[in-house]
Amino acid sequence: MKALKIPEATITRLSVYSRFLEAIDKKGIVTISSGEIAEGTGVSPAQVRKDLAYFGEFGTRGVGYNVKDLLKHTLKILGLTNRWSVVVVGAGNLGSALVSYRGFRQRGFDIVGVFDNDLTKIGKKLLDLEVLGTEEIPRVVKEHNVKMGVITAPASAAQDVANILVKSGVKAILNFAPTVLNVPDHVHVRNIDLSTKLEILTFHLGMENDGY
Amino acid sequence: MKALKIPEATITRLSVYSRFLEAIDKKGIVTISSGEIAEGTGVSPAQVRKDLAYFGEFGTRGVGYNVKDLLKHTLKILGLTNRWSVVVVGAGNLGSALVSYRGFRQRGFDIVGVFDNDLTKIGKKLLDLEVLGTEEIPRVVKEHNVKMGVITAPASAAQDVANILVKSGVKAILNFAPTVLNVPDHVHVRNIDLSTKLEILTFHLGMENDGY
Repeated sequence: MKALKIPEATITRLSVYSRFLEAIDKKGIVTISSGEIAEGTGVSPAQVRKDLAYFGEFGTRGVGYNVKDLLKHTLKILGLTNRWSVVVVGAGNLGSALVSYRGFRQRGFDIVGVFDNDLTKIGKKLLDLEVLGTEEIPRVVKEHNVKMGVITAPASAAQDVANILVKSGVKAILNFAPTVLNVPDHVHVRNIDLSTKLEILTFHLGMENDGY
Repeated sequence: MKALKIPEATITRLSVYSRFLEAIDKKGIVTISSGEIAEGTGVSPAQVRKDLAYFGEFGTRGVGYNVKDLLKHTLKILGLTNRWSVVVVGAGNLGSALVSYRGFRQRGFDIVGVFDNDLTKIGKKLLDLEVLGTEEIPRVVKEHNVKMGVITAPASAAQDVANILVKSGVKAILNFAPTVLNVPDHVHVRNIDLSTKLEILTFHLGMENDGY
């Protein structure tokens, strides 16, 4: 199925569905309709059905979906049936926030290393992790079979950090630095630009104010 | 044009285009084609043309777009021709990271208040802002005519914070707490779930590993 092109928006929604299904499952609910998933997640029923259809038929007409099966399936699709080891490069405020962010651990992400090249940060403790120098990245990546790296370094350092991560064997990078990274084709990169989210809000506020 | 429904993905891309155009404009480039915008932003040329067409015709066939005009137009659409005052509620690591994040200021967002209900945080300085108690939110929101709030409080406190923000007059909320907020219809909410972005990456890694 490698050739199957699944829109990124669908994957994002699958992530939302799986969280909703987890909550529903915990409440002991056994079956659920696409309409109920839609209502619980704020997605239209037609979109829910379309998204789930990408991954084959697994609802029963008139009965709906088995919650546990559907949850297991969405987690499998998202690659979340295994745990993932992650390194964070950049131990400033944002890096520190991510290391202590409980949401990652809950979803199967274990931060196994946090790095900086600032001598005033190296040796500092973030939860149970000691901030290490960036020269330690290759060792930690190899030791923990790390496939994912998060860059919270400044924009000026981000490309260097990406190079070290890629050379160490990291295959996927989540980049918070406001810069475009050049990486080989086999490495997946996603950028989080915090301003963009605010700009979606100003767009809506602007529409109301001046009737754009 | 209030009835015009513009897909959120288009607005997100407009934000990306406008940043690219800013960089291009700084280099002194006067005109640009949709193909060059596409190449510079990683979006397909057809998609660029489609996105820009939402907002009327402003390219010249065979010549392309005037960079300054297009930039001005995208900023206007995004509501970024004014500056926006923003408050941040939750002065933990993530809140501290956002207050010191230079990207916001560059795009026209001024953080004018940061709040917490933790007595060990109140009075602390974050850049030039002193962390205030949450009871000060209504005063600061009114004083600075704040329309946007960012919630970086824990999930358990997020709804209470949202209620205070809405009651104070905030019209748009960016929510980092992993919880669904209930707000009146006239208030815009966007959620940033940091795990979701990692899950898009595990989806791709998983596809490669087990051929899903």
